[in-house]
Amino acid sequence: MIITVKKEAPQQEIDKLIQGFEKRGLQVTLIHGDNYNVFGLVGDTAGLDDKTIRANPFVEEVTRIAAPYKKANRLFHPQDSIIDVAGIKIGGNEKIVVIGGPCSIEGANETLEIAEAVKDAGADMLRGGAYKPRTSPYAFQGMGTEGVLAMVEARKQTGLPIVSELMSADKLDEFVEYVDLIQIGARNMQNFDLLKAVGKVNKPVLLKRGLANTIEEWIMAAEYIMSEGNQNVIFCERGIRTFEKYTRNTLDLSVVPIIKEKTHLPIIIDPSHATGDWKLIESMSLAAIAAGADGLIIEVHNNPECAWSDGAQSLKPERFAEVIRKGKAIAQVIGRDM
Amino acid sequence: MIITVKKEAPQQEIDKLIQGFEKRGLQVTLIHGDNYNVFGLVGDTAGLDDKTIRANPFVEEVTRIAAPYKKANRLFHPQDSIIDVAGIKIGGNEKIVVIGGPCSIEGANETLEIAEAVKDAGADMLRGGAYKPRTSPYAFQGMGTEGVLAMVEARKQTGLPIVSELMSADKLDEFVEYVDLIQIGARNMQNFDLLKAVGKVNKPVLLKRGLANTIEEWIMAAEYIMSEGNQNVIFCERGIRTFEKYTRNTLDLSVVPIIKEKTHLPIIIDPSHATGDWKLIESMSLAAIAAGADGLIIEVHNNPECAWSDGAQSLKPERFAEVIRKGKAIAQVIGRDM
Amino acid sequence: MIITVKKEAPQQEIDKLIQGFEKRGLQVTLIHGDNYNVFGLVGDTAGLDDKTIRANPFVEEVTRIAAPYKKANRLFHPQDSIIDVAGIKIGGNEKIVVIGGPCSIEGANETLEIAEAVKDAGADMLRGGAYKPRTSPYAFQGMGTEGVLAMVEARKQTGLPIVSELMSADKLDEFVEYVDLIQIGARNMQNFDLLKAVGKVNKPVLLKRGLANTIEEWIMAAEYIMSEGNQNVIFCERGIRTFEKYTRNTLDLSVVPIIKEKTHLPIIIDPSHATGDWKLIESMSLAAIAAGADGLIIEVHNNPECAWSDGAQSLKPERFAEVIRKGKAIAQVIGRDM
Amino acid sequence: MIITVKKEAPQQEIDKLIQGFEKRGLQVTLIHGDNYNVFGLVGDTAGLDDKTIRANPFVEEVTRIAAPYKKANRLFHPQDSIIDVAGIKIGGNEKIVVIGGPCSIEGANETLEIAEAVKDAGADMLRGGAYKPRTSPYAFQGMGTEGVLAMVEARKQTGLPIVSELMSADKLDEFVEYVDLIQIGARNMQNFDLLKAVGKVNKPVLLKRGLANTIEEWIMAAEYIMSEGNQNVIFCERGIRTFEKYTRNTLDLSVVPIIKEKTHLPIIIDPSHATGDWKLIESMSLAAIAAGADGLIIEVHNNPECAWSDGAQSLKPERFAEVIRKGKAIAQVIGRDM
Repeated sequence: MIITVKKEAPQQEIDKLIQGFEKRGLQVTLIHGDNYNVFGLVGDTAGLDDKTIRANPFVEEVTRIAAPYKKANRLFHPQDSIIDVAGIKIGGNEKIVVIGGPCSIEGANETLEIAEAVKDAGADMLRGGAYKPRTSPYAFQGMGTEGVLAMVEARKQTGLPIVSELMSADKLDEFVEYVDLIQIGARNMQNFDLLKAVGKVNKPVLLKRGLANTIEEWIMAAEYIMSEGNQNVIFCERGIRTFEKYTRNTLDLSVVPIIKEKTHLPIIIDPSHATGDWKLIESMSLAAIAAGADGLIIEVHNNPECAWSDGAQSLKPERFAEVIRKGKAIAQVIGRDM
Repeated sequence: MIITVKKEAPQQEIDKLIQGFEKRGLQVTLIHGDNYNVFGLVGDTAGLDDKTIRANPFVEEVTRIAAPYKKANRLFHPQDSIIDVAGIKIGGNEKIVVIGGPCSIEGANETLEIAEAVKDAGADMLRGGAYKPRTSPYAFQGMGTEGVLAMVEARKQTGLPIVSELMSADKLDEFVEYVDLIQIGARNMQNFDLLKAVGKVNKPVLLKRGLANTIEEWIMAAEYIMSEGNQNVIFCERGIRTFEKYTRNTLDLSVVPIIKEKTHLPIIIDPSHATGDWKLIESMSLAAIAAGADGLIIEVHNNPECAWSDGAQSLKPERFAEVIRKGKAIAQVIGRDM
Repeated sequence: MIITVKKEAPQQEIDKLIQGFEKRGLQVTLIHGDNYNVFGLVGDTAGLDDKTIRANPFVEEVTRIAAPYKKANRLFHPQDSIIDVAGIKIGGNEKIVVIGGPCSIEGANETLEIAEAVKDAGADMLRGGAYKPRTSPYAFQGMGTEGVLAMVEARKQTGLPIVSELMSADKLDEFVEYVDLIQIGARNMQNFDLLKAVGKVNKPVLLKRGLANTIEEWIMAAEYIMSEGNQNVIFCERGIRTFEKYTRNTLDLSVVPIIKEKTHLPIIIDPSHATGDWKLIESMSLAAIAAGADGLIIEVHNNPECAWSDGAQSLKPERFAEVIRKGKAIAQVIGRDM
Repeated sequence: MIITVKKEAPQQEIDKLIQGFEKRGLQVTLIHGDNYNVFGLVGDTAGLDDKTIRANPFVEEVTRIAAPYKKANRLFHPQDSIIDVAGIKIGGNEKIVVIGGPCSIEGANETLEIAEAVKDAGADMLRGGAYKPRTSPYAFQGMGTEGVLAMVEARKQTGLPIVSELMSADKLDEFVEYVDLIQIGARNMQNFDLLKAVGKVNKPVLLKRGLANTIEEWIMAAEYIMSEGNQNVIFCERGIRTFEKYTRNTLDLSVVPIIKEKTHLPIIIDPSHATGDWKLIESMSLAAIAAGADGLIIEVHNNPECAWSDGAQSLKPERFAEVIRKGKAIAQVIGRDM
């Protein structure tokens, strides 16, 4: 950690700071600059609060050198982590996974029908929302437990593992019993109590990036889960909020190489929520694969115009199959299977 | 609602759309433009999902005319709502309230000491975090119930009502019993299950704006609470996330007149979290009052350099008193008391 | 154009508005909604100023239906435009072009050396900055005319057409004489006088997206050039500014399918400026090709650690060759040559 | 400057780096951390390019300690600079200035009429656009020289100094002859050639903040002007671009105390362009004064509904007078005149 101190700081203040750091077992180097003095601190600075140090009126700036995450940090865990979701392996050089399914679960028959369609198209897993985070309280809020059970039935028929979003810790038992991959949605990325709760169970977690969260905060959210014991975290980029109006969000594909550089965990891409527009899904899916993503999660609906939510961003099964077809060819170019 | 349809749409598609809208009891007007056709829909369109309509490949754009919120909408509730927090009235032309206290509760004695200091300075209420939403799992997570009880004790001694953040519905009973104003933090602004939970109790709620949420989404979060029955919502702006690096967040004071135009609810300003820098608190507090805010919530600590969190943004009690002194004079200029 | 008017508007105001619109030859349809009245205007509304209409205190909202651009609009020009740069064709189904070269021109020998290296690697054109837009007045500002002439010499030796940034209209003659593709940089995307100036010459223009400009504003910048007569505009995405700190900017690849849907012009991607990090160039380049981009512009330097600017984002020639090698394979998957 | 180097860096690389820095006369301190090594550099690092250092694959991070600006830096110029605009003093503890006038100059009579109205209301200077930066080439582009002369005539009649935007260096002579305060617009904040041009003349410059520029970049734009010789720079905040849709831009009032802390130059606020909505002007103007701004620049039009541009954000003269009346009272509270 580097601490920049104003030249006008009295010696007595500087001594007090140094003593405080040394008491914590940190080794202090003082560099006298022309306009500022600078402390370099060596040792475990994770327990130091930047903002408390900055409260000292003589402190100009505090800069962290070491990343604030440990368990997710590739520095301390150089090999890729491969996450196992009901027998499907995600990450490293494993096959790129494709997850397809409706935004909202709308009934047992409809779910089974889409499950079969996405399976035929080549999907590895089924997605579907039973509990829906909707901006409006007047919009459809999801079928709840009934929706989860419809997915369980579809899994029984098709063999596809199921992914669904958990919105509240009080449904965690239900998800542990029925769901194969527990999704934490973008709006709950910093719902720390929910992160701690899924950190205590032994199910893989799909952690979506918040709409305006930095990559570092996203990794810290994974760190919350991992620090409670659950190491099975998969990142999912779904677009960030910018000033652009032609897309719902701005898909940030540079996260793919960055997450792989900074952490040892897999990352998949959700082009449906990122763009909000089915016409953009194919190109963004192929781009994600070319960028090195470990998987895709795409909304598919037999009849998007009648979907109960987010129809505009859903692909019909035939187009979904086309995306997978082209995706496989791109995967081969970069040395992956799909 | 206005729906823009491509010129190439076949008549049969247009008829199908019209029949669909009419079945819902909507009145349809069709305008033939040069490059597009446009439908105007009159009636209750709140149940229509924009994204489902946009899934139709002939639909170019969907524009809502009516605001999606009802209970918070000033159009249907022209008078200002005055929220009563343990006898203190907030909103309308009531006295501008000042809430002060530490970021984190650090012990019973420390809390009492700060409570007395903020009371002496002229504060109306005491704030303090017992459950802390921290970016890092390795940072201090708050004293929990013990912290809440420390605030209760401080209230007993000083008479100041208390405000604290609720992070999880499973602590709601504790908050209903002990806390006077339940804060929903920025990171939980779209934790819809938590919003529904506080919507079912009869305590006022301080609803912070999410770091990257639009004003409309913020009002919709209030609508979640209000649609469950609890009409006692106070908005709190605490800065939004932008590209700027000299401040922690960008304080958006234009929300004050906008919230007052669009809704009938009160709004207060948190300059501490918005700026992250105690040197900016005074000027932003005075600006907030001049802009018409109904209150301020400011972090105060006897010894910011030793605070367990966010020391850099905490005022010492004397500076806090100075802010109140100047604030009162500004309040008078715009015809308010403080 | 759709104009939403408050219910409380007196009939006389409504009549005045209608007369104003009819005087301009617009056809007006009035829809009576429950909470608002809505005017639909048909005809040429390009001359109407939204903000002037919004100045009427009874007007709640103004919504444009038709896009504000004409010459760039694919609606009126359905075929892809192919832009010819010194014999190299860009756009449509033409070969994907690769432009490589140093951030700053540093001398005749250095330029020739890099030109030969990028040519050997497979590049189609040479880029290089002779006039440099630097944040600091104390940073190297470019070699100016001498730099342009160094590129001209490199073109003579290698046959590669040259691309360089024009920062000021007073150098336009020099660029028309010597440069094959005139770049307008991100910071000048809304320097309207410069846009008009390059609109009057007959050289192709590479128009970079501004750091915080919407796609619509970007197309309007092209429209400035085209409305002066020069139809040879190529868009270039180079990342937009967001809150993220691990990358210099956020590369927005969804612009590729959007620009192709809304306009008939080509689009190329600059992964170097977007990311600011050479480690991310390869994955973002391959993603751009998979997304359908018409070309890449990449910074290449023989010795990035000694570059006079932006070394961190420059590839060495061998890595550049590797990007082209993999890029060709991805291009084939989507049916393009490179 | 602090340079973080990976532990795996070979000794030979470290020696090479140290030698490079020492050759530049910098004093190097090396701190061995647990996971990284850190160099502290003391001396004049302004000539070092961060990005070139970062090009070294063993370098993890480069952090500047000293601000990159010198002439604008309060550290080297502790007293407030007072800028004289045709006899009106701006900055320090001088009277808060009020600048009013139309967005676009529309004719000599109209200009004179508004000039008299703003003077009566209490304005100190007249603003007006003769050259207009419009998003669309089909929108009114300003009256040009004729507009400038209309303002000159209004100055003759009213005595109010005049402010107008310069869009291109080729009109600089005209502005030097006729205009009292030369405005550089937000879209040209990083048009470095234009900045250098106005840096060479002896007229005060009103430098608007770019729509997505950091405060540091803004100060660096001032530094461009000052490094050419012209020290008479006044900052003007006019809102930044965010995701919010209810306002045109987000007014960032925290810039007021920050600009005053970091620099010795004055800062004024433009609430008209920031909000785009006349209903928000009064509250944002009063907030700006309370925050400590040195002035306001506000759009005023006799008949906003007939303005040729930006009517929605223009105040009528009576409301403008009301803003000044209340503003004076707020100014007194913070010890300023207005």
